[in-house]
Amino acid sequence: MDNFTFFNPTTIEFGADKEQAIGQHLAAHGIKRVLLCYGSDRIKREGLFDVVSQRLAEKGIEWVECGGIVSNPVISKVREGVALARHHQVDAILSIGGGSVIDSAKAIAAGVGYSGDVWDLFIGKAAIASALPLFAILTLAATGSEMNPGAVVTNEDTQQKFFISSPALFPKVSIVNPVLMRGVSRDYLAYSAADVIAHLIEVYFTAAIHPKLQSRLVESVIHTIIETTEALLSDPKDDNARAQFAWAATLALNGLTSSGASGFSYPNHAIEHSLSALFNVPHGAGLSVVMPAWMKWYHGRNPVQFQRFAREVFGVDTTEQGIGALEQWFDKIGTPTRLGQLGIQEADLPAIVDNVQVNVRGFGIADIYTPDVVAAILKSAL
Amino acid sequence: MDNFTFFNPTTIEFGADKEQAIGQHLAAHGIKRVLLCYGSDRIKREGLFDVVSQRLAEKGIEWVECGGIVSNPVISKVREGVALARHHQVDAILSIGGGSVIDSAKAIAAGVGYSGDVWDLFIGKAAIASALPLFAILTLAATGSEMNPGAVVTNEDTQQKFFISSPALFPKVSIVNPVLMRGVSRDYLAYSAADVIAHLIEVYFTAAIHPKLQSRLVESVIHTIIETTEALLSDPKDDNARAQFAWAATLALNGLTSSGASGFSYPNHAIEHSLSALFNVPHGAGLSVVMPAWMKWYHGRNPVQFQRFAREVFGVDTTEQGIGALEQWFDKIGTPTRLGQLGIQEADLPAIVDNVQVNVRGFGIADIYTPDVVAAILKSAL
Repeated sequence: MDNFTFFNPTTIEFGADKEQAIGQHLAAHGIKRVLLCYGSDRIKREGLFDVVSQRLAEKGIEWVECGGIVSNPVISKVREGVALARHHQVDAILSIGGGSVIDSAKAIAAGVGYSGDVWDLFIGKAAIASALPLFAILTLAATGSEMNPGAVVTNEDTQQKFFISSPALFPKVSIVNPVLMRGVSRDYLAYSAADVIAHLIEVYFTAAIHPKLQSRLVESVIHTIIETTEALLSDPKDDNARAQFAWAATLALNGLTSSGASGFSYPNHAIEHSLSALFNVPHGAGLSVVMPAWMKWYHGRNPVQFQRFAREVFGVDTTEQGIGALEQWFDKIGTPTRLGQLGIQEADLPAIVDNVQVNVRGFGIADIYTPDVVAAILKSAL
Repeated sequence: MDNFTFFNPTTIEFGADKEQAIGQHLAAHGIKRVLLCYGSDRIKREGLFDVVSQRLAEKGIEWVECGGIVSNPVISKVREGVALARHHQVDAILSIGGGSVIDSAKAIAAGVGYSGDVWDLFIGKAAIASALPLFAILTLAATGSEMNPGAVVTNEDTQQKFFISSPALFPKVSIVNPVLMRGVSRDYLAYSAADVIAHLIEVYFTAAIHPKLQSRLVESVIHTIIETTEALLSDPKDDNARAQFAWAATLALNGLTSSGASGFSYPNHAIEHSLSALFNVPHGAGLSVVMPAWMKWYHGRNPVQFQRFAREVFGVDTTEQGIGALEQWFDKIGTPTRLGQLGIQEADLPAIVDNVQVNVRGFGIADIYTPDVVAAILKSAL
């Protein structure tokens, strides 16, 4: 087990009706005016917007809307949000939505604290010195962004999907009410399951040091994701399954399961970010294509852990059976496992391989993930 | 899964040499003078005191010593600490030791923030409004106090072992360096293992709602405690096992494994606190006596979870076999399973039963744990 620092100051308010207290949480932090970030108008049609605006009004908190944030969120929208936040002199950002909305809110929060162009923070041209306080109401469980300090945004001009991370970007309070997630489609549930599993297995398989305690925690969370995804696909009204799915998704990327692990990296994310950047595929759908292909290429580097995965997660004997079981499970729940299902053909591979090179440099793994290696992995996913 | 709030702002600095940065952590919080709490002179003989005092001096931080804190810490010592802290106008408390020292430090921190007698905070006569900031260097992993807001102290005059809890009592920074725990005796390692398992199974068995995700996390931590205790008993130099043991102990009572569970209580602690209060037995040793006896009495109230425990933790078929396996494991590692091993005889039971009644009222479970029930549980542990 390696040295580590664990620090996670986010308050999670988990469960039914927790969004009713959003006004109190903001008031407790002295907030007077928020930038209210959201995606589609679904939150207005389904009543959540009304609930939130009433609760804010009751506490005398003003809001400025920043709607229309899309999946695979883009830097142009973040720039718009930064300008709005500055113009209206908001003193916090409130995100209502899934990971894309929270990530945009984080980028806006950091952008307001920086005098130059916010993309500078993504390309390492400047560091995040300060950020507006962040609050979130989660409507889709997948990315874990509600309880971590990271954000991923795409620059449409340069076709780069890059990330930022700073302790200043931990949300102050995140409200995770599984009931608000009842409207998530079957497709997005499946993509979300793949995203959560990716967060868990990247560290689990690539870490040079990965203690058994942390392996057990990872396997516990994966078992729960498998079980609750299946339960929700057969009965979308199973709120208990939805709650466990949501908390599992949070725990998968809040620092818990990676504590004490070291020497790990995020190759599946590095490759997938290029699929999203170039073809705007859902992140989880891209990951469920990349993961089995990557596992088939990588497993020889960590045979003991792959055998453990096969045995502990799927109860099968060999590495090949374990990888096959995960791929079949992705097929079963309806998230893609082949590039063709994403509309990506062999002719597209050179552009993807090229785009991935910037990401793997960003993740510090360019020495392993050379163009040839990435091409081979992607080819096996055709 | 029930609603919950998860909030844990403690920074854990985990691993070798982390105590070397104690001066920086205090300086980063603007601390100029600390009350330095510790137990025996072991930290002076073994050099830790010198390291800490040098690191403080380098940062211009003064310290006032409050040594001699004992296991099952007492309120008289806490009062002494409060007086010292006030007299020297310290602006933080630094604890060097195990759970007893941290718990005393927490009580002192809360006592300084209260104008009356500190015991008032334990008996509900006053609430904790503020506390001095707390920092800890852990030398024994067991109680989880390094990452939670609770503290347990004994009033020697009234023979009450009571607890306090307040968000103000989360340590700011806790340094958990397993290397500093190499000197823990075989006995105390075994008692600590029992304490950690008690923290996990109290919630696991008594909760009205206990989601499978949380059950899996609990079982993962118990497996790690069993495995690493055995590893350390055969090789005390196994620093990797000691590290996993330490982090498992922290996770067992930092809010993680109980998140989403509800309707739980701490009957084993309620009973054991009376053994410690009256006979000054090590807390973990008392728990390893109480637990199997309590489980034999309680299991019919939650048969499904007891069968799960038997199967998942010990790989046996029946509840009786599961309880038996835990009892045998306690015997094997050398922590007591009979009251006689603690020097407690049948003639002592009435006084214990009487003392327990105050505790079960404090824990809100006096309706179940009547004198007859407690007497029956204790009798079966003779």
